[in-house]
Amino acid sequence: MDILTLVGLVAGVLIVVLAMLANASLLTFLNLPGLAIVLGGTFAVTLIKFRLSSVTGAFRLAFAAAFTDRVPSPTALIREVGALAMVVRKEGILGLESHQTDNGFLQKAINLCVDGHPPELVEEALVQESRQIEERYEVAERVFRGIGESAPAIGMLGTLVGLVQMLNTLDDPSSIGPAMAIALLTTLYGAFLAQLIALPLADKLQLKAEDEGRNHLLIITSMRNIMRGENPRVMTELLSSFVTPDQRLGLAPEREA
Amino acid sequence: MDILTLVGLVAGVLIVVLAMLANASLLTFLNLPGLAIVLGGTFAVTLIKFRLSSVTGAFRLAFAAAFTDRVPSPTALIREVGALAMVVRKEGILGLESHQTDNGFLQKAINLCVDGHPPELVEEALVQESRQIEERYEVAERVFRGIGESAPAIGMLGTLVGLVQMLNTLDDPSSIGPAMAIALLTTLYGAFLAQLIALPLADKLQLKAEDEGRNHLLIITSMRNIMRGENPRVMTELLSSFVTPDQRLGLAPEREA
Amino acid sequence: MDILTLVGLVAGVLIVVLAMLANASLLTFLNLPGLAIVLGGTFAVTLIKFRLSSVTGAFRLAFAAAFTDRVPSPTALIREVGALAMVVRKEGILGLESHQTDNGFLQKAINLCVDGHPPELVEEALVQESRQIEERYEVAERVFRGIGESAPAIGMLGTLVGLVQMLNTLDDPSSIGPAMAIALLTTLYGAFLAQLIALPLADKLQLKAEDEGRNHLLIITSMRNIMRGENPRVMTELLSSFVTPDQRLGLAPEREA
Amino acid sequence: MDILTLVGLVAGVLIVVLAMLANASLLTFLNLPGLAIVLGGTFAVTLIKFRLSSVTGAFRLAFAAAFTDRVPSPTALIREVGALAMVVRKEGILGLESHQTDNGFLQKAINLCVDGHPPELVEEALVQESRQIEERYEVAERVFRGIGESAPAIGMLGTLVGLVQMLNTLDDPSSIGPAMAIALLTTLYGAFLAQLIALPLADKLQLKAEDEGRNHLLIITSMRNIMRGENPRVMTELLSSFVTPDQRLGLAPEREA
Amino acid sequence: MDILTLVGLVAGVLIVVLAMLANASLLTFLNLPGLAIVLGGTFAVTLIKFRLSSVTGAFRLAFAAAFTDRVPSPTALIREVGALAMVVRKEGILGLESHQTDNGFLQKAINLCVDGHPPELVEEALVQESRQIEERYEVAERVFRGIGESAPAIGMLGTLVGLVQMLNTLDDPSSIGPAMAIALLTTLYGAFLAQLIALPLADKLQLKAEDEGRNHLLIITSMRNIMRGENPRVMTELLSSFVTPDQRLGLAPEREA
Repeated sequence: MDILTLVGLVAGVLIVVLAMLANASLLTFLNLPGLAIVLGGTFAVTLIKFRLSSVTGAFRLAFAAAFTDRVPSPTALIREVGALAMVVRKEGILGLESHQTDNGFLQKAINLCVDGHPPELVEEALVQESRQIEERYEVAERVFRGIGESAPAIGMLGTLVGLVQMLNTLDDPSSIGPAMAIALLTTLYGAFLAQLIALPLADKLQLKAEDEGRNHLLIITSMRNIMRGENPRVMTELLSSFVTPDQRLGLAPEREA
Repeated sequence: MDILTLVGLVAGVLIVVLAMLANASLLTFLNLPGLAIVLGGTFAVTLIKFRLSSVTGAFRLAFAAAFTDRVPSPTALIREVGALAMVVRKEGILGLESHQTDNGFLQKAINLCVDGHPPELVEEALVQESRQIEERYEVAERVFRGIGESAPAIGMLGTLVGLVQMLNTLDDPSSIGPAMAIALLTTLYGAFLAQLIALPLADKLQLKAEDEGRNHLLIITSMRNIMRGENPRVMTELLSSFVTPDQRLGLAPEREA
Repeated sequence: MDILTLVGLVAGVLIVVLAMLANASLLTFLNLPGLAIVLGGTFAVTLIKFRLSSVTGAFRLAFAAAFTDRVPSPTALIREVGALAMVVRKEGILGLESHQTDNGFLQKAINLCVDGHPPELVEEALVQESRQIEERYEVAERVFRGIGESAPAIGMLGTLVGLVQMLNTLDDPSSIGPAMAIALLTTLYGAFLAQLIALPLADKLQLKAEDEGRNHLLIITSMRNIMRGENPRVMTELLSSFVTPDQRLGLAPEREA
Repeated sequence: MDILTLVGLVAGVLIVVLAMLANASLLTFLNLPGLAIVLGGTFAVTLIKFRLSSVTGAFRLAFAAAFTDRVPSPTALIREVGALAMVVRKEGILGLESHQTDNGFLQKAINLCVDGHPPELVEEALVQESRQIEERYEVAERVFRGIGESAPAIGMLGTLVGLVQMLNTLDDPSSIGPAMAIALLTTLYGAFLAQLIALPLADKLQLKAEDEGRNHLLIITSMRNIMRGENPRVMTELLSSFVTPDQRLGLAPEREA
Repeated sequence: MDILTLVGLVAGVLIVVLAMLANASLLTFLNLPGLAIVLGGTFAVTLIKFRLSSVTGAFRLAFAAAFTDRVPSPTALIREVGALAMVVRKEGILGLESHQTDNGFLQKAINLCVDGHPPELVEEALVQESRQIEERYEVAERVFRGIGESAPAIGMLGTLVGLVQMLNTLDDPSSIGPAMAIALLTTLYGAFLAQLIALPLADKLQLKAEDEGRNHLLIITSMRNIMRGENPRVMTELLSSFVTPDQRLGLAPEREA
């Protein structure tokens, strides 16, 4: 699923760049001072609005959202914890010790169980971990929404600066067009940054936070049942409320196991 | 009722197209690169913001909303479940077995009853089904609102690109007009897509979600009463709170039945 | 009070029309295709967004709000129900039979009482009636807000269409001015429709819904007391919390009665 | 404190007027038809949106907020009710009879006490009075926010009218500038009215409503304690939670008294 | 952390100033009357909207946020109160007497403890102090948001004034450019003030209010435990829920102490 984030980012940028190349060279659209105003100004404003650690964390999360595929489908998760429940049924909690999983949150849950902590403490630790992951997504979303708000405003500021410069040197009529083109570029950069990158990423991070939150709840619910020694089939039945009816069909063989 | 969605879509598009044809050929308004920027850019942004399955689901739901008439009037529904209650009174629950209905949700409710599941389980399954249908409508509404927000912004971006290109080639004064016209087309496309299609459809999907939700509640309430063997007339009386006083008159013969 | 709605509508339209006539003939401002785009486009979009019955109901309510004066002052209502309470004290509930009133809701309440329904049923029926009237106002308000949002957007779309047409025919410089004037007309129509008609009417309908709701509550409260055979003076005292202290003075003679 | 509202209003208007005079005569900025459109149109729209009594009440309240200084500081109030409590301690409730105060709400509270009404009734009457004052502020705030929304929109409408008139008479190039200047004036009037007068006054009325509400609560709390015969010093201590620590220092001598 | 606020402010201003200097002298961008309109008008509006004390308080807080680094990290705070708990364990509450700290709120908490006030009173006083600090931040945030809303509007007003002046003196074509440049300057000033200074500072103050609030809660929680004579290690464990897992590692040596 996450590959689409990258595809969307690349496609959006490519489409606009191709449109630029249609009737002019790309150099026409490159104005380093303008780029410096929009990127630098937006970064300066973001530094005032947020902590530096929030900003770097936001970019790390967005990068991860674009290039890696970390949110597993609930169906796969239900099958995995179903298998874990079978193991615990046969070999006891310590049977989980050898289980390795890509899912960091599930791995943490397993480790806490194997370490022999009491169930309430395991659950509390997982709930707190989940809340902190959620908070990190929320801060990242706010950072990108902040960028999406500031970038067009700073771009407009740059265009105003360019217009004032141009209007003071109207002597040479032939320079009006190109000068105004350069003035417009900062507005273009700001809109580009906000509409094709920052705002969509903010929406994506919000969506991922919802997905992760639902998976965390699923894992916490299942670990509670596993530690109670619940019947694996009953647990899978119970967890099926996390998925749509269509996805539930995919769980059927598991249930009959 | 739903035919009006289609009528509205066609009428809105037609009116604007006629206005275009009034003083110019339609070709004046066709600019394939511009169309590619707006449609492609909006699609790219939508891919980042939502899951692909959400997007395709949104279009399926919107298509269904425009071309089919699936939300039955509460009055018709009350009459239908009244008839069902009569059947159950005379022949017992199994009498429903032969009943066929166009309403998928009601059919599902009947099947669950006939299968002999306990009433609480039937109700819970229907409530969950209703919630998932509602959620699907909500995601579809968010997708169209997202398109309605992005399309004008991308259109504006395309116009900025066109303006910069035009301003760099002011040498030939006769080309200024047509070049600026082409630059404006992407803004036109974006506004067209958002105002005549995406945003109205988002509103319509919201309205349909409300209608479907009310019908689902009506069906769930009536199935609960039917399974309890409630008197059909009492049940119809009770369900009449789902309709306006005017519509209630249409139920009168049924009540006296 | 309601006459002011009409006065406001007429005055707003008149002021702008006089401004148009100041330096040009009214024909300058009449462009039938432009009018067709804005009215037709807005209507098409409204058809997609709402049910046809909601739209016609909204116009009926707005017409009633502009041309009739249906919301009675709470003071007058308190006096009227005070008189009713006196009648019931002297002649019993059936003494209300001959009472005629312009207030539809109060008339309905009286009829329900005279018909001998039990008090709880009368109250429930009135509450439901009140809620449905409120809902009708709310839908009407949403329709006019929808028009107030769509009309300027469709007007802007029409102006874009006109600008593109004009820019493609720059050959004759003398036609630029009038062509651009015509292009601007649709924006003018959209702003006119939204700002002077649709949005103020939406606000007025919201205000009327609040007024009617308060009056309904007053009537429901008083009918409950009348059916209980409460002392008219005590009841008037109790109802006085529905009015401001100034208005309460107007009730004083009634209290001493 | 309230003198600043007047200072702000006068200063804002003066600054803009001085800017107008800098390079042109004030007559350049005076256009009676334009002024009529903006003021008349905004008034017409306001008549539709609100009741006439709400509008006049809003202007009365705003005038009072600008020219009088009626909200006393909580510190002064605490001192005043502390003195009242001392009087009651020594001479009983009737000792308040001769107390005169500028504060209308406090005077009303004293009168109610002296009249010998039971404490609950006094409190209820004061609470209702306070709620109605608050509501009056709220309506006034809504009126000014409504003006602040409508005025720029009507101004824009006037500019569109002026532009269309100008574009139809492009024959005389020398008239274009002044005609466009006049067209822009209505936008200027609308922005002026909204940004320098209506919206700031709406904010001020909101602030005053909060201040008055807090003072009313303070008076109600203190009257309850006075009627209970509470120790004045204990009461002052209790009321000190209404003020900031800095202001509390000003109460100290009173406490030691 | 707070140094970044200053860096952001300086960097943002510097970037835009450098962009101004790129193609013109800074004098081109200096227009004293324009500056007077924007600064004076915004200040006038702010005087109407807020109390003078709120405005000066807002600037004091913003200055402190930009030039000092007053919000300590929760980790440092946990270590500090851990040390305090050790002291109390060994020497009793009075052992705190000699403890000096930069943190005003913690110092106040210590003083209250040492003064021998009962624990409930200490806690109540601290909660009230915390609420008043929070309120002061909130008012300051509202002041800067108000400036961020008014400044661009006043700037736009100044530009309209300039445009009307320019349009009335079109006789000299060579003066059009510079006159329009000057007209645009007020919009530029308004956007600059809002986007690079007022709005980011409002966001920063909101962030600081959240940070301070969390620290206050941490201090209140720890003082409650210290006065109860709680085990320092248990208390540190309990407070660790205020920090992220990464920060918790930094607490480990303390725990083992």
